Amino acid sequence: MSPKSEKTTVGVVAEEVLAYTAGRDAELDVALIDADCLGSAAHAWMLSRVPVRPPILSRDEAKTLIRELAKIPAEARAGTFRITLADQDVHLAVERRLTAALGDLGKRIHTARSRNDQVAVDLRLFVKRELQDVVREAAGAADAFRAFAFRHRALPMAGRTHLQPAMPSSVGLWASAWAEGLLDGMALAMTAYDLADRCPLGSAAAYGVPLPIDRQLTSDLLGFARPFDNVLHAAQTRGQLEAQVLFALGQIMLTLSRAAEDLILFAMPEFGYFRLPVEYTTGSSIMPQKRNPDVLELLRAKAAKVMALSSMTAEIMRAAPGGYNRDVQETKEPLLEGLAITRATLRILPGLLAGIAVDRDALRRGFSPGVFATDRALELVAEGVPFRDAYHEVKAHLEALESRSPEEAVAKKTHLGAPMGLDFTRLASRIREAADWAKGERAASDRAAKKLWALGR
Amino acid sequence: MSPKSEKTTVGVVAEEVLAYTAGRDAELDVALIDADCLGSAAHAWMLSRVPVRPPILSRDEAKTLIRELAKIPAEARAGTFRITLADQDVHLAVERRLTAALGDLGKRIHTARSRNDQVAVDLRLFVKRELQDVVREAAGAADAFRAFAFRHRALPMAGRTHLQPAMPSSVGLWASAWAEGLLDGMALAMTAYDLADRCPLGSAAAYGVPLPIDRQLTSDLLGFARPFDNVLHAAQTRGQLEAQVLFALGQIMLTLSRAAEDLILFAMPEFGYFRLPVEYTTGSSIMPQKRNPDVLELLRAKAAKVMALSSMTAEIMRAAPGGYNRDVQETKEPLLEGLAITRATLRILPGLLAGIAVDRDALRRGFSPGVFATDRALELVAEGVPFRDAYHEVKAHLEALESRSPEEAVAKKTHLGAPMGLDFTRLASRIREAADWAKGERAASDRAAKKLWALGR
Amino acid sequence: MSPKSEKTTVGVVAEEVLAYTAGRDAELDVALIDADCLGSAAHAWMLSRVPVRPPILSRDEAKTLIRELAKIPAEARAGTFRITLADQDVHLAVERRLTAALGDLGKRIHTARSRNDQVAVDLRLFVKRELQDVVREAAGAADAFRAFAFRHRALPMAGRTHLQPAMPSSVGLWASAWAEGLLDGMALAMTAYDLADRCPLGSAAAYGVPLPIDRQLTSDLLGFARPFDNVLHAAQTRGQLEAQVLFALGQIMLTLSRAAEDLILFAMPEFGYFRLPVEYTTGSSIMPQKRNPDVLELLRAKAAKVMALSSMTAEIMRAAPGGYNRDVQETKEPLLEGLAITRATLRILPGLLAGIAVDRDALRRGFSPGVFATDRALELVAEGVPFRDAYHEVKAHLEALESRSPEEAVAKKTHLGAPMGLDFTRLASRIREAADWAKGERAASDRAAKKLWALGR
Amino acid sequence: MSPKSEKTTVGVVAEEVLAYTAGRDAELDVALIDADCLGSAAHAWMLSRVPVRPPILSRDEAKTLIRELAKIPAEARAGTFRITLADQDVHLAVERRLTAALGDLGKRIHTARSRNDQVAVDLRLFVKRELQDVVREAAGAADAFRAFAFRHRALPMAGRTHLQPAMPSSVGLWASAWAEGLLDGMALAMTAYDLADRCPLGSAAAYGVPLPIDRQLTSDLLGFARPFDNVLHAAQTRGQLEAQVLFALGQIMLTLSRAAEDLILFAMPEFGYFRLPVEYTTGSSIMPQKRNPDVLELLRAKAAKVMALSSMTAEIMRAAPGGYNRDVQETKEPLLEGLAITRATLRILPGLLAGIAVDRDALRRGFSPGVFATDRALELVAEGVPFRDAYHEVKAHLEALESRSPEEAVAKKTHLGAPMGLDFTRLASRIREAADWAKGERAASDRAAKKLWALGR
Repeated sequence: MSPKSEKTTVGVVAEEVLAYTAGRDAELDVALIDADCLGSAAHAWMLSRVPVRPPILSRDEAKTLIRELAKIPAEARAGTFRITLADQDVHLAVERRLTAALGDLGKRIHTARSRNDQVAVDLRLFVKRELQDVVREAAGAADAFRAFAFRHRALPMAGRTHLQPAMPSSVGLWASAWAEGLLDGMALAMTAYDLADRCPLGSAAAYGVPLPIDRQLTSDLLGFARPFDNVLHAAQTRGQLEAQVLFALGQIMLTLSRAAEDLILFAMPEFGYFRLPVEYTTGSSIMPQKRNPDVLELLRAKAAKVMALSSMTAEIMRAAPGGYNRDVQETKEPLLEGLAITRATLRILPGLLAGIAVDRDALRRGFSPGVFATDRALELVAEGVPFRDAYHEVKAHLEALESRSPEEAVAKKTHLGAPMGLDFTRLASRIREAADWAKGERAASDRAAKKLWALGR
Repeated sequence: MSPKSEKTTVGVVAEEVLAYTAGRDAELDVALIDADCLGSAAHAWMLSRVPVRPPILSRDEAKTLIRELAKIPAEARAGTFRITLADQDVHLAVERRLTAALGDLGKRIHTARSRNDQVAVDLRLFVKRELQDVVREAAGAADAFRAFAFRHRALPMAGRTHLQPAMPSSVGLWASAWAEGLLDGMALAMTAYDLADRCPLGSAAAYGVPLPIDRQLTSDLLGFARPFDNVLHAAQTRGQLEAQVLFALGQIMLTLSRAAEDLILFAMPEFGYFRLPVEYTTGSSIMPQKRNPDVLELLRAKAAKVMALSSMTAEIMRAAPGGYNRDVQETKEPLLEGLAITRATLRILPGLLAGIAVDRDALRRGFSPGVFATDRALELVAEGVPFRDAYHEVKAHLEALESRSPEEAVAKKTHLGAPMGLDFTRLASRIREAADWAKGERAASDRAAKKLWALGR
Repeated sequence: MSPKSEKTTVGVVAEEVLAYTAGRDAELDVALIDADCLGSAAHAWMLSRVPVRPPILSRDEAKTLIRELAKIPAEARAGTFRITLADQDVHLAVERRLTAALGDLGKRIHTARSRNDQVAVDLRLFVKRELQDVVREAAGAADAFRAFAFRHRALPMAGRTHLQPAMPSSVGLWASAWAEGLLDGMALAMTAYDLADRCPLGSAAAYGVPLPIDRQLTSDLLGFARPFDNVLHAAQTRGQLEAQVLFALGQIMLTLSRAAEDLILFAMPEFGYFRLPVEYTTGSSIMPQKRNPDVLELLRAKAAKVMALSSMTAEIMRAAPGGYNRDVQETKEPLLEGLAITRATLRILPGLLAGIAVDRDALRRGFSPGVFATDRALELVAEGVPFRDAYHEVKAHLEALESRSPEEAVAKKTHLGAPMGLDFTRLASRIREAADWAKGERAASDRAAKKLWALGR
Repeated sequence: MSPKSEKTTVGVVAEEVLAYTAGRDAELDVALIDADCLGSAAHAWMLSRVPVRPPILSRDEAKTLIRELAKIPAEARAGTFRITLADQDVHLAVERRLTAALGDLGKRIHTARSRNDQVAVDLRLFVKRELQDVVREAAGAADAFRAFAFRHRALPMAGRTHLQPAMPSSVGLWASAWAEGLLDGMALAMTAYDLADRCPLGSAAAYGVPLPIDRQLTSDLLGFARPFDNVLHAAQTRGQLEAQVLFALGQIMLTLSRAAEDLILFAMPEFGYFRLPVEYTTGSSIMPQKRNPDVLELLRAKAAKVMALSSMTAEIMRAAPGGYNRDVQETKEPLLEGLAITRATLRILPGLLAGIAVDRDALRRGFSPGVFATDRALELVAEGVPFRDAYHEVKAHLEALESRSPEEAVAKKTHLGAPMGLDFTRLASRIREAADWAKGERAASDRAAKKLWALGR
């Protein structure tokens, strides 16, 4: 009998069940290797200080474990440490790796914790780093919009409502609006960060452990702002945090999607305001003349995706009762996917924006006489004509507005936030502040990790 | 010919189009009357100070307008001011009312603004007050969970994972976890509040006006933290703000939905942990013995609703290009609906929670021997038995755990956040802080309104 | 003591709970009055034939009930029958009305059924009539697109990919594509109809009754295609049916939303292909020159709404366990709302389409030389030039294509489904077939109702 | 200088853009290899029959192409044909492969088509086969529920409403309800199949081609029911079809999710009705006594996922204007993912259901006296007691019902669809009919493919 046909039914079932339950974990969990090692190191150190006799781990055992854990991230990058399907997930892979090197000591690290708080701490460490990157990259994208706006700050562009040409505006106003949109998204990301910045370690399977563990210590070692208060709450935030992060990402993508939609429209030959850099467009297999805005179209679709991942994740949690339920595992992939999509989008934007050519003449063609109508009506009002009469007067003589200058019209809009009242200095400093926040948080995360690894020495 | 048959096709079309475009605005906008009058009052005062000759409004005209506007909220409550279908919306209704009293002066207030920034400022003033109420009511609900938890802080309850009895826990841990969940939701609501707390007045149709208006002044008069910077951004946040508010509400509802699910389960006769207060249950038209948890089931469904309203609103915006597009109007109803649902839910909870009877015996029955297994394994580990051996030892002698005491098991979980390590003082003060925030913001809003109305005297 | 202050806490709670649980039922259930009376009439007749001694209802009692029930729909239309908040829903209102007239007999009709199967049968009768109307109105909208297409069948229009002008096409191809899109939506609506067309009566609270009731009889009396097989399944489809109906409506709206988007774009002055009829556009409060496509923008947003209502409804059901749970009540409002939105949209379209002016010159301006490029390349290929060479040859001499005639280019596309290969006869007959289906089903529903009422005589 | 540092900025951008635009296509498109080869073969044969001089392809050239294409599926399975990242997608990979073997002839096959209609036909051929499998596997799962139901058809089980024990019911009723739920889902899948079963070939980039191609021929060769009428419609259905397929899958998953929820509940030790087969449960890393229903919990979460993928896909399309837009590419991955999840779930169910142990005593314990209350009230009614009096009488003497027999109570429910009125023969034949449909359609697809490949000989 061939080895293949010997596979028993039980084996087939087991494989099928494993595939169904482990899903893509072996693949996805690569992103969590660093965090898992850090979390385990902090836990080991803490265990060595639990005031019980005999100690759960001696100080030396803890150091040994930390030293061994410290090697794994590099091994993963070198390809010598891998998560296999048999491992199921990063936790078992790391445990296998530890046990191979240290024997039973490698297993004793699993005292007073559960895979539940282990994955929870991994995800939070990971999310913190990712959101640091998201904010940094979003600041980069916002700055690209700001720079674009500043470059063309006095360049007239017909402002639209209902997509109809409506009023004098500027390229500067248009572009810097998206920069500010990104700043709102970053504010949401920072709130998600604050909600992530709490340490769940010690919640175990959600109900804590009957040992005097020191949750404040692990929280500090890992650079968290604080440990969670209620351990059940710590467990139950899994999935909801993911939805909160994804919502912030979705709002960033939503802002970019609307900017992309405008770019697609205004790059159509009928407008010609903007010409997209050729390296960010694609040709057609049968239409030699085409330069298609595929990147921007995909951005629009990817925004729908990230937004859907947020509600998918929240819905997964709504149907799960309290405590830990396996449903929550299905929120990991959407989180990773949403982060990857958003970050790729943020990274691609600065180059795209920098390469856009702006056509002053095409922009001027957008100034049909009606665009000046409201301004003219306001002038009449200022001269004492009642608004209603001014409105009708202007409507009846639209052609009289043809000779108006877009530049002059824009020049008159000087109040705070108007085309010629934009405060680019303040905008730049708001963006810088966000970038600095990201840099500062990253430095703090790195410092904590460094200190933790140093305990192994 | 009867009057009815005289209705021309044009009239029918006009009516149909009006019905399609105005939607339920006449009905919904009642919620915005106060805000619309405040916004107009601030705008009038500001107009009287715009440094142009002749002035747009004289100081006396502004005072007259403010005095007239001040009357409308009371008239609305008395039923003498109504928004009719012909008005379409609150803005036109207020303008009609002003013009009826003040003639052309009533129309001149519409100088240098658009219905776009008018509705935007109304919605933001409204959202601020609503979120103050949401946070206050959420604090009330959180406090009800806290009080419930404190009352039963040492009462053992089997903690579950995968819905299976898993480990010793307490009613206090279970109930206070939901209080902490609500605090997370409140944090999201406060971020939405901060994003709402910016004044869009002066953005007009999204591109500002060619007059030296003072946007900082209207912002201050209305008690906003600051005016928006970019006026186009001010316009473009409409719809996104609604999605952000609804997401925060959705997260609050999600937490409550999961708590409700647990209550439904544990109130089943097979558990009997909790007995719901009779006035919060309903009977059956054909089953005399039933006491059904309809309120909690509806809560679960309403959570799905609020969550869906958030993504609906965000999606409406994604398909809308930049600038103002009418699509945004369809985000008003979901916002009002989501706020109404969430607030009704938050208000119903304290009474329901206060009336729950807890059955100590039933809770004790949940402690099957296996619930003590992990603790026993940990004891063996503490005695020096390797975890793997301990695990097998315990598994083989589960019946030996039958005599264990739930109270003693719970008593051993004393670390931070564990059943007997809960910091109720800190929890109470966190809740109080949120309630104080709401109270403080409400007082500030009220002060600003009072000062504004006083300008009319 | 004033009457107001006498209101006890219990009373306040009761009111709050009633408001929370009944929701807008009193208002919404007006739509179900006809169906509820029919359902009760069929049930009464069936009860009089259940082979038990003494009979549950005598033949005469059944006739009396049917006669009384027959009066209620007219009373509702006349305003003399109303569902009050105290009634909670249509079922209790009808029961109250029957009991007022017939005393205890009015209550005996409630034997062997539950409010669960009562509302289920009401909703299915209602959904059937609504979907008949939806398909009829969708056929009307499809026919308006078809007529528009036929009117302009040979009028060249640059076909676009990525919104860039791409290839010769026609207004006829553009417009009839939407007609076919609607036909797909109608196919989905008909499947939802088939799923709706099953009678749940007799499932009672989901588990049937210990009496030899005749479910086939009530199904036949009400004109259903058949009774449900499993009574628990009958109960459990509630909510899922709603999601299925809403999905079909959402797909219809999606098709229309994309057509609306195209109309908005091509009505911009930069294109000017289409001019929307003035009565379907709105002006601006401050921009006298504007004609805004509000109807189409709202359509786009309303499509998002209907689509979200479908997933909201499905999600409500996912978190509800088997059997009847009150969650399902929250699926009624989305159903009614989705139907109302879709039908209003379908009804507004024919007039809008009929009034669109098409500008031949503007359409011609869309034919930049590149639009002919693929055709030219294909000509070269037909002459034996390898495609790659042809592609480069054409790309290098785009200006040579300037003199090409759009009409001639379109005339060459004659294969099945191409601009000049459209089969308008087949399209018209497909639309007619759908309209006929709706008419036939409506007639069958009316016949069944007439026969049922006749039993009371 | 090392080769790595030579990478120019342009190269980096190109790579970044390629990664952003191609996404996971190289990986995902493996699923489309068979379909792509079939589509190309049909197109080649048709090209050889287009009545132009010189012919686009000679008969022999077409045969050569078909023979070469016929080899590729096997090569893919053997691993000798691969889609590389440089290929971007299956179409370019196949073209590369053909050109390597046949030189320019390999490129000439791309005449009169576009990647748009190529991927559209691939996806439809793929979807047809997948839906055949879905229906076949869903029939298998339905049959497993049916067999379970039949096995326990007379076994009493308390029917629940609001999760409270409500009325006598049976395991048979419970289990066969899910079988019928699956049949409804299959009906939706078959409608999606009908909508898929139309050939888009020849629509090219959406506007057809200026050549007398024979779209009926390619449709017939590929075994489609018919070609699309309007070619623009053919293009515009992409993305919507995906949403329609995913909705049907989502409804199947929704039914299963609710069944899973019931299984999770009734497998809790407090009920103990069902014991899940050990190989479908998992243990705990720290709780030796646990047997967790992970498979069912994941099923519940995966249902949320598939449902979200449907609305994600529909939303992607809503924001895309008419014609082809690249947004549509993002609907491919959700389609493949939704199919994979649903099929894995359907395949895992029969084994799980077959292994469930049912505990008759535990089921009997669910029959609290109240469960008999409605039946008793109905008996009194049948004896002539008015329902209201009967209701109160029963409510006052619930304890009198304690001695009732669940078996007898169930035995009295004999009407159509009631626990003892289930028609298992009809259910089995409905399931068989669906399975036969799947088998028949698969055979037809295989026949068409075989005939097509034979043309190459």
